[in-house]
Amino acid sequence: MSDEARIALRDSLVRAGLLIATGVEGVFGRSGLFERIVEGFCDLVDAEAANDGAEVMRFPPVVTRADFERSGYMKSFPQLVGTVHAFNGNERDHATLLRRLEAGEDWTAGQAATGVVFTPAACYPAYPALAARGALSAEGALIDITSWCFRHEPSLDPARMQLFRQKEFVRVGAPDQVIAFRDLWKTRGEAIIAGLRLPLVIEVANDPFFGRAGRMLASSQREQALKFELLVPIASDIAPTACCSFNYHQDHFGHAWDIRRDDGTPAHTACVGFGLEHITLALLRHHGLDVPAWPADIRTALGL
Amino acid sequence: MSDEARIALRDSLVRAGLLIATGVEGVFGRSGLFERIVEGFCDLVDAEAANDGAEVMRFPPVVTRADFERSGYMKSFPQLVGTVHAFNGNERDHATLLRRLEAGEDWTAGQAATGVVFTPAACYPAYPALAARGALSAEGALIDITSWCFRHEPSLDPARMQLFRQKEFVRVGAPDQVIAFRDLWKTRGEAIIAGLRLPLVIEVANDPFFGRAGRMLASSQREQALKFELLVPIASDIAPTACCSFNYHQDHFGHAWDIRRDDGTPAHTACVGFGLEHITLALLRHHGLDVPAWPADIRTALGL
Repeated sequence: MSDEARIALRDSLVRAGLLIATGVEGVFGRSGLFERIVEGFCDLVDAEAANDGAEVMRFPPVVTRADFERSGYMKSFPQLVGTVHAFNGNERDHATLLRRLEAGEDWTAGQAATGVVFTPAACYPAYPALAARGALSAEGALIDITSWCFRHEPSLDPARMQLFRQKEFVRVGAPDQVIAFRDLWKTRGEAIIAGLRLPLVIEVANDPFFGRAGRMLASSQREQALKFELLVPIASDIAPTACCSFNYHQDHFGHAWDIRRDDGTPAHTACVGFGLEHITLALLRHHGLDVPAWPADIRTALGL
Repeated sequence: MSDEARIALRDSLVRAGLLIATGVEGVFGRSGLFERIVEGFCDLVDAEAANDGAEVMRFPPVVTRADFERSGYMKSFPQLVGTVHAFNGNERDHATLLRRLEAGEDWTAGQAATGVVFTPAACYPAYPALAARGALSAEGALIDITSWCFRHEPSLDPARMQLFRQKEFVRVGAPDQVIAFRDLWKTRGEAIIAGLRLPLVIEVANDPFFGRAGRMLASSQREQALKFELLVPIASDIAPTACCSFNYHQDHFGHAWDIRRDDGTPAHTACVGFGLEHITLALLRHHGLDVPAWPADIRTALGL
């Protein structure tokens, strides 16, 4: 897709008042109507999960730096991470900082890393929270989690935001438990998105691992079919956008954060993630920017 | 209040399953029940504001660095700010970073500031968004906004979180318009909190300005009665906690971001902010940690 097409799509969303431009690529405000679509979609997913008994956890949009360091994320995706830094100086340091700021120079060099990092994926804070409870029961655990996430990838594509929300369910336990969960949500996710009459494909996928070593990790992830994405065209018909992902992490997180099964072995984990901005943009792309003119069944399904 | 009292309160909230400890002071996960109290309170406030015709804006938990620099926040509250930094290096830099991380050394020194800063108060992104629209009409503007906020002030007090949510309404226009708005919400806020049978006082207050010059700014803000806080005891009866604030900024933000009235002069602004975690903690402190045992009228008011 050309930059012109990306800019045209972005500008049409801003002109329609659905997104608010901020001057930074991939960082937008949302209108009340945009948020009602997001909420309507979340309610649809929650209705599907109503009898699963998931435990709700909500975290601020950060993971602690100690937990983040254990995740291995910095090894695989260093280019996407947002560390949070703060000023720890005295009044003299402050005066220097303000002089730089007023001169239009870089004033951020003295900022020091705090104890938190922006959440890269909604489920990250849940794993150490679970691990802290001790060994799982034989049933394992099922978590319902939603969070703002940050990924440092400025782009003209309105469907590649630096700040976005993921709604996730996370299953933790034995391999057969978590694979069955992932496959159940592949079916559920497809039904939900197809029910909203969005054109979709589900494909084996890989995460955007960094560098040359990353290419091998990506290829191994694909060969083992650990990650599936549900894709819908948004900015491009040729390169559709991932709106949901269905992931089996094997025992990677179980090892990283020492989450133990009832038999003492590292837990396996899987998660399903719904990209709330991507899905909302897909709905706007396929049903139009004039939301009151959407087909009645879609509006009813989303409570609009 | 002693550290022991702060720790006891924090631990009772964690033991009751309402907050989830993360290992970093002032950073907690929330349970589903905690979130239902937050949502119930938001609905109460929205019912009060239902006929005001406020425009809903929702932003991710950041403000752009360019907008942030114009705000003057770095001058007044440098100690609270969270700048967001990212890795921009190549594969060799990445290898160095990983060696440091694995050796337990500081790996964050090479992180460079991105185009965003953590939102310090929910209303900040709204001002530049308004300014971008050009001069206001004679009616001015009224914005409904909610956001995660970050303030770097690690504390044992569970009512002093580093990451928390503010629900705000913002009025922009002529001095008389925005002062009337602030005074209306002082009355409304008191009625809402008193209706939840929380003991409260409303007092003239000041922001935590940095350094010696800051003490003068704080004293001037108090003398002019620009800021009022509604306080409820949470961790301490002697030093109650601000749960709502009612702020008149004069034309500070109108100047900073060039928001113009219909006559071309800088707009005046006021905001009312509800600290959603503080209010939820106040309810838990005064009605007990056993939410199903709360008085029926309180549960009804909050839809619990």
